[in-house]
Amino acid sequence: MYSFKNDYSEGAHPRILNALMESNLVQEDGYGEDQFSRKAVELLKEKMGRTDVDIYLLSGGTQTNLIAISAFLRPHEAAMAASTGHILGHETGAIEATGHKILSIEAENGKLTPSHVQAVLDGHPDEHMVKPKLVYISNSTEIGSIYKKSELEQLSDFCKKNKLILYMDGARLGSALCSEENDIQLSDLPTLVDAFYIGGTKNGALIGEALVICRDSLKEDFRYHMKQKGALLAKGRLLGIQFLELFRDNLFFEMAMHANKMATLLREEISKANIQFLTHSPSNQIFPILPNAFITELEKKYSFHIWEKVDSDHSAIRLVTSWATKEDEVVALIEDLKKYK
Amino acid sequence: MYSFKNDYSEGAHPRILNALMESNLVQEDGYGEDQFSRKAVELLKEKMGRTDVDIYLLSGGTQTNLIAISAFLRPHEAAMAASTGHILGHETGAIEATGHKILSIEAENGKLTPSHVQAVLDGHPDEHMVKPKLVYISNSTEIGSIYKKSELEQLSDFCKKNKLILYMDGARLGSALCSEENDIQLSDLPTLVDAFYIGGTKNGALIGEALVICRDSLKEDFRYHMKQKGALLAKGRLLGIQFLELFRDNLFFEMAMHANKMATLLREEISKANIQFLTHSPSNQIFPILPNAFITELEKKYSFHIWEKVDSDHSAIRLVTSWATKEDEVVALIEDLKKYK
Amino acid sequence: MYSFKNDYSEGAHPRILNALMESNLVQEDGYGEDQFSRKAVELLKEKMGRTDVDIYLLSGGTQTNLIAISAFLRPHEAAMAASTGHILGHETGAIEATGHKILSIEAENGKLTPSHVQAVLDGHPDEHMVKPKLVYISNSTEIGSIYKKSELEQLSDFCKKNKLILYMDGARLGSALCSEENDIQLSDLPTLVDAFYIGGTKNGALIGEALVICRDSLKEDFRYHMKQKGALLAKGRLLGIQFLELFRDNLFFEMAMHANKMATLLREEISKANIQFLTHSPSNQIFPILPNAFITELEKKYSFHIWEKVDSDHSAIRLVTSWATKEDEVVALIEDLKKYK
Amino acid sequence: MYSFKNDYSEGAHPRILNALMESNLVQEDGYGEDQFSRKAVELLKEKMGRTDVDIYLLSGGTQTNLIAISAFLRPHEAAMAASTGHILGHETGAIEATGHKILSIEAENGKLTPSHVQAVLDGHPDEHMVKPKLVYISNSTEIGSIYKKSELEQLSDFCKKNKLILYMDGARLGSALCSEENDIQLSDLPTLVDAFYIGGTKNGALIGEALVICRDSLKEDFRYHMKQKGALLAKGRLLGIQFLELFRDNLFFEMAMHANKMATLLREEISKANIQFLTHSPSNQIFPILPNAFITELEKKYSFHIWEKVDSDHSAIRLVTSWATKEDEVVALIEDLKKYK
Repeated sequence: MYSFKNDYSEGAHPRILNALMESNLVQEDGYGEDQFSRKAVELLKEKMGRTDVDIYLLSGGTQTNLIAISAFLRPHEAAMAASTGHILGHETGAIEATGHKILSIEAENGKLTPSHVQAVLDGHPDEHMVKPKLVYISNSTEIGSIYKKSELEQLSDFCKKNKLILYMDGARLGSALCSEENDIQLSDLPTLVDAFYIGGTKNGALIGEALVICRDSLKEDFRYHMKQKGALLAKGRLLGIQFLELFRDNLFFEMAMHANKMATLLREEISKANIQFLTHSPSNQIFPILPNAFITELEKKYSFHIWEKVDSDHSAIRLVTSWATKEDEVVALIEDLKKYK
Repeated sequence: MYSFKNDYSEGAHPRILNALMESNLVQEDGYGEDQFSRKAVELLKEKMGRTDVDIYLLSGGTQTNLIAISAFLRPHEAAMAASTGHILGHETGAIEATGHKILSIEAENGKLTPSHVQAVLDGHPDEHMVKPKLVYISNSTEIGSIYKKSELEQLSDFCKKNKLILYMDGARLGSALCSEENDIQLSDLPTLVDAFYIGGTKNGALIGEALVICRDSLKEDFRYHMKQKGALLAKGRLLGIQFLELFRDNLFFEMAMHANKMATLLREEISKANIQFLTHSPSNQIFPILPNAFITELEKKYSFHIWEKVDSDHSAIRLVTSWATKEDEVVALIEDLKKYK
Repeated sequence: MYSFKNDYSEGAHPRILNALMESNLVQEDGYGEDQFSRKAVELLKEKMGRTDVDIYLLSGGTQTNLIAISAFLRPHEAAMAASTGHILGHETGAIEATGHKILSIEAENGKLTPSHVQAVLDGHPDEHMVKPKLVYISNSTEIGSIYKKSELEQLSDFCKKNKLILYMDGARLGSALCSEENDIQLSDLPTLVDAFYIGGTKNGALIGEALVICRDSLKEDFRYHMKQKGALLAKGRLLGIQFLELFRDNLFFEMAMHANKMATLLREEISKANIQFLTHSPSNQIFPILPNAFITELEKKYSFHIWEKVDSDHSAIRLVTSWATKEDEVVALIEDLKKYK
Repeated sequence: MYSFKNDYSEGAHPRILNALMESNLVQEDGYGEDQFSRKAVELLKEKMGRTDVDIYLLSGGTQTNLIAISAFLRPHEAAMAASTGHILGHETGAIEATGHKILSIEAENGKLTPSHVQAVLDGHPDEHMVKPKLVYISNSTEIGSIYKKSELEQLSDFCKKNKLILYMDGARLGSALCSEENDIQLSDLPTLVDAFYIGGTKNGALIGEALVICRDSLKEDFRYHMKQKGALLAKGRLLGIQFLELFRDNLFFEMAMHANKMATLLREEISKANIQFLTHSPSNQIFPILPNAFITELEKKYSFHIWEKVDSDHSAIRLVTSWATKEDEVVALIEDLKKYK
């Protein structure tokens, strides 16, 4: 049984474990004030060519989202997200638990545009309703699509004009930035969004997300919020060492490229087999539509999520690849998918 | 510069890193549903001789405290804690951020007794005040003291009679249970308290605390609370593998015994040097009182916390030992302390 | 300019002000422990033929909703509501501010059915999502529709089977119960729902809603929640005196009947004028669809809400009648509406 | 049985009820946008000689405190209050329920000084603790003392220097400003504090507190917070009409003066009887210390609170006077107190 269920089925890239080993007995200060975390932050700033951003290392995506959003918003302000947005349906009300409503937007392909957001603003004119303030996007999105630079620029301009906060969930940012269709650089992001995170957990780290706060007014006292929400690890070095290794050379991007390459292989061969996709997804998640009976057969050899019903006989499944996905398992899956007709 | 600042200055016990290495490429389900986490939970139940407790693996102490306490209490109910309690002054209002007041109790040596709690109950007769409901204790306490079994039994009986929840913060439970003065077994705890956690981070793990919920009425839906607060790690295996290794044999207790042995060595030699202590602490934290000028000298060679001013010329410092503390560094520190007069 | 904007444009029924006058200098205990509040609660229980409900007097609808829902739910549990539900879009995220998500349901005519709720349950299988727990309905609804007894029975049965809490917002319960189409008695409600409130503010009181908690498990410590949310008025008598007057004889229902009578008059004459309605609303709110230019004319003489655009040339307006609506103003409005063609 | 239990035992000053009567059938917009509320706000600004403050009318003290404090603070920021502060022990954790810790300060006579606050700041150096941000004071205090202008100026200067918010709970501001020992004018307050409220409920209104926000940075979007916490009354006129009547001429101050006069009468005669007081209180609350047996006798004829035990045989009781306190009842009580020896 091989798993295409997600991109966090294995541990970490071996280089990361080695880095933990090598540094293991060095004594360091706690709570992210160790030299590794400090260096990792500096390294990330270098990679972005920016010294004016603040960077914090956190343990997971939901944690990062809830701390950032609750730190950025005042009590009456709300987030906006595509209906597919992870914070809306897959984080057990984590944002609402901090007191903030999320306004859901039906969005083609999981991506928000200025007109989507404008419609929400129009529908929220006064104090009897929440004040829409933060635009949550994810790149790649929860259904595998990615933002083009021009799309992000338009959204960014719109948010600036309307004094909105633009926040990007980058749980799968590596795969997005390494997509064949991508035209955004990591160094573009601080100009385009007010805050974003670089996902480590889904791209080869044991745990770890690097939150980048770009807008000055959002920076104050951020470590207080981390501590208050239980996110300041005593052994913060665990995060620092990993991000240092991920970005010391090109490891972070190499792993994302491998994941994408495996997904592309699957996507192309599945297309050839005349199988349709639920959505256009040029990243490491693909969503082929298959007959239910055929899915049942596949489940005997592979594990994956059944994403949604398409009609009474067909469903879309989600196949996810990662830095650890083996090419021969992909080939085997392709062979099995070719039996479809 | 050698650090006696805390018990989380190093990484993890090498066996833990080895366990991570060995299991690294095994594919597992996410979010704590991997085989390692499942086995770790079963193993812990075995060690306690109990099958009727629920156990969850979390990342850190503040996270565990805030999730447990907010899951256990209704909105109008409050926690009670000794004024030295970690949740009161060292967690950035994490409990209050979930909506609950903490009532502070001045307590000799950091430990609560039935009469302390009774006084709080007496002062909170009606709905114009919060309803005191959860008694937070820590073992060992924040100032190194430990509970005797009889003390815990009395508190436990009192809480049962008064329908209060008794919760034990076990960030340093290993050191407490391995103290020369201890007469409590791990297997006693499910009978004595309603919930407690076994601290991994401060006893040789990279990260990780195992929350044990003993009272049935507190168990329902606990994973929802974990997810909502950002504590359900995608790679939950990271926690499972560590606890499996900690409790596979006696590693957890061996590490605590080493920490205690180093503290005892320090304590005994410091006593011989006629130095007083702030508090009686038979665990891995000790608090000698030293002249400020002498402290300044010590700081050139060792790092540690200055705990509190005692008088205009003296302060108590905190020395913490761990599984990783080197005996020759302890000996060196003792030599330096002997220069005190 | 006469207002059909809402049912709270005037003060209170004169009898209520008289009751305040007469009792004004009697000394009473504060915070709802005065004799008036106590008697009002007893009187309401009598009117329902029930001694086993708990009743609390609160100041307004949003306040009542937020206190009840946050008191009833645990942190990970969510409310469900029709997309037109007042708590969803017109209370500034009051429920979310207490930490709870509201799941929105598209519902014909503003009313929920078991199949609506079942679909939400089906979509929330595990701890990665909130746990749907409380079904919020309003009667009459925000768009003027009312529940038939059989509809409420089905929903009630479904909620009992699925261990859900059924909560009814009765801001306009008077109008619902006095509708020509209604077949529900006030005394039916404690059997059908777990909690509901009887709206005073929109039916002739100065302020005041009477929350009735029917299910035993929801009753404990409710006054604590009221106090914590700022709802325990020092001069609770203000609420008690009003409800005593409203239910001393038939005043509450007489006022609702007058409001409904005025709405019926409008509805029938508007129908005759061949004007369509947005929705079937047999209560004190009606929603005729008019050409925008005609609406502009009407606005010169009457005030009312423009509810929503219907097409590029037409909009639905909302006309609300109350205990204070003057029949000659209704007649005048009808005359003006007849100019429509 | 005559009550000296509090200053909200009766309804409202008859002029207030008359004002409600007279305006009763005027149609007005809801939610505080009625002409009465608007005029009341303008009138209050006039009385203070300030056009640059924002004023909002709310229902009660706890409500006002919780909305203001939660609107003013970011999630990690805390309030500071004297241990006698109403928000600390008598509001059922209302502030904590909005997520904020309150740091308790032992303060002589219920009043805070710069050195009190400095000590809290010194004890909160970093992100492992909450950030002390708002200084909560009450005038008159919960134990009847009042601030002198110079005291308030010093505190105000200190707060400005340290970027702290100074907030005054004015539940009994009328009595404070009319105290014989007072040297503060209503018009001084906007310069001295960042926000405060003028208490109506405890000074002759049915309900109502007028919150005055003086500091610009605290003003934005305040009505959102009111709505979100259930404080925007549909019939906001109820508050507007009352404040208009209170401040149309001198009624607010006349009522406070009567309350103080009655308290002074009691205080002077009690002093003559050689009875000690718990605290110096030149306002409408006094706290004589009496033998417990004597208190039991008094309770047969008067109702009042037993405030606290002083020794095994004596307790302090609280006597509160109001606009409605009858002089002959005061004289009768004095006669009874003279039986003390």
